[in-house]
Amino acid sequence: MRIAILAHEKFPGRAKTALGILRYSDDEAVAVLDRDNAGTRVADLVRDVQDAPIVSRMSDVDEPVDALVVGIAPIGGGFDESWRDDVRTALERGCDVISGLHYFLADDAEFAALAAENDCDIWDVRKPPVDLTVSEGKAADVDADVILTVGTDCSVGKMTVSMELARAAREAGHDAAVIPTGQTGIMIEGWGNPIDRVVSDFAAGAVEEMIVEKGDEHDYLFVEGQGSIVHPAYSAVTCGILHGAMADRLVLCHDAGREVIHGYESFSLPSIPTYVDLYEDLASPVRETTVAAGALNTAGIDDETAARRELEAYGDELGAPASDVVRFGADPILEAIL
Amino acid sequence: MRIAILAHEKFPGRAKTALGILRYSDDEAVAVLDRDNAGTRVADLVRDVQDAPIVSRMSDVDEPVDALVVGIAPIGGGFDESWRDDVRTALERGCDVISGLHYFLADDAEFAALAAENDCDIWDVRKPPVDLTVSEGKAADVDADVILTVGTDCSVGKMTVSMELARAAREAGHDAAVIPTGQTGIMIEGWGNPIDRVVSDFAAGAVEEMIVEKGDEHDYLFVEGQGSIVHPAYSAVTCGILHGAMADRLVLCHDAGREVIHGYESFSLPSIPTYVDLYEDLASPVRETTVAAGALNTAGIDDETAARRELEAYGDELGAPASDVVRFGADPILEAIL
Repeated sequence: MRIAILAHEKFPGRAKTALGILRYSDDEAVAVLDRDNAGTRVADLVRDVQDAPIVSRMSDVDEPVDALVVGIAPIGGGFDESWRDDVRTALERGCDVISGLHYFLADDAEFAALAAENDCDIWDVRKPPVDLTVSEGKAADVDADVILTVGTDCSVGKMTVSMELARAAREAGHDAAVIPTGQTGIMIEGWGNPIDRVVSDFAAGAVEEMIVEKGDEHDYLFVEGQGSIVHPAYSAVTCGILHGAMADRLVLCHDAGREVIHGYESFSLPSIPTYVDLYEDLASPVRETTVAAGALNTAGIDDETAARRELEAYGDELGAPASDVVRFGADPILEAIL
Repeated sequence: MRIAILAHEKFPGRAKTALGILRYSDDEAVAVLDRDNAGTRVADLVRDVQDAPIVSRMSDVDEPVDALVVGIAPIGGGFDESWRDDVRTALERGCDVISGLHYFLADDAEFAALAAENDCDIWDVRKPPVDLTVSEGKAADVDADVILTVGTDCSVGKMTVSMELARAAREAGHDAAVIPTGQTGIMIEGWGNPIDRVVSDFAAGAVEEMIVEKGDEHDYLFVEGQGSIVHPAYSAVTCGILHGAMADRLVLCHDAGREVIHGYESFSLPSIPTYVDLYEDLASPVRETTVAAGALNTAGIDDETAARRELEAYGDELGAPASDVVRFGADPILEAIL
């Protein structure tokens, strides 16, 4: 698929979804829409991702495009009216539109009419399917080994780690797939259930359904985790994924230097061994499992020696192999979990 | 309010909501609708609850009624078409209709039209409010002490324990209120958020919102817990309530003799001390708390001496005072938590 990615005024630093797609999607990015950086290229701003020209607006994209992807999410998940022209232009050209906003574009009267008129689809990835139900506690019955990324907080790299581990496993000759549970993962993979938008009674069931669907087709499933089990707001999502996935092994993801919960700064992170105990002890009555490896995000540490030192300390606290999958590769983790 | 309670073919044994309302609601029950027991009275079948005549159908209720309450929930939460006449009759008489079914009666074309025509309301208590949002982690800031009932499984008596403790606290002269989180609690109290139907991202926030609303008006809030923290399907709900409530003290509810998870019999319950550790350890990074007392449901044990022996063993395992609030009263628990 050939895609354009909307990321106005937030690319690249605050465009996590756009970057995830550029890094991991099989789709070909023909343009990034960012009026602040128009005229430059992705490669001028970010390394290690797919390159593409950056333009001001959808009407500046001359090449054929199959879909426009909204690659940013403002706080609250609303639709920014300054994007309306771009979405309108895309639909008028017959492009599909893919969005992870809380505001559902398919329910917007103008967009719905344009999509019908031009015979194209609007896919709001955060709208969960209507046929979800409760877990039956059977995810562990699948043939595949299930590996779940869990975290010490939000935004510590669980999605990235899941993608990198699956990619590295495939490169090592294994049949591995990602089970996407959040908007960026869903956009990259082209399918998935947005667990944070599922009613809480069905959170575990929505994870189980995906594992059961894919579990006999692959040798390894990497389940994208969400939030943290001690997050004041989002722990319900984490807990539903933990019990729904019934993982064989866990990979604990952490952001080097993070000491308090992001956005909830009065809450301190417990120690790494406490996280290990909490995740293992909570999972075990449903499915015995262990934290078999750790992933540390050292992007905030410039000095490589200092980053390695942090990583070593993290592995010691964890009592398991650890790596920064982006900086130092996935091998130490893969050896521990495959 | 004067109410009729629909409980066809399930009263009293499989009519948990109807019984909860008869036991704890301030509303006056003028009739129970149960075609299997028509002609008898509630008091012939159940003790310790409000009495009322049992009739076959709504049209047999001669007295004025303010609301018809659907007091049973079939597996799956669907609407049984054999109840349509009763709901229709109620609406034609100008009665409100209150339902906790997953099938929303307000979305039923015939019922919606009748309600509009006769100027009465349909309240689907399982439809969550639309303005919910994420928790801010501030439930602990309220003046009231917050006491949360947690459980070893579903259907062990958390709602009953919450109601009994609040009632006993009030009788002892304290200003106590219940924070209802499930359909029966919501029907009894006349307000509340159905946490199991809230999107998982907002589960904790929906609990916090209720505590913040009531927390400065009372000395004690008894939060109705849901599910169990190790339930294969429902733990997300439990976890959201645990972190959203930020309780000062927990009361661990258990059903005497229960060894496996209800409906998930391949999963064994962990030991009581394991539950204590799990709930305390998981809550503590958000809010330090302790399991200060236990509630044991001994309804399945006929012999009183045997029931007392079970209770004693439960208290020993728990390392805290325990009681069966229905059989032996709430005092031992109240002494430990107020």
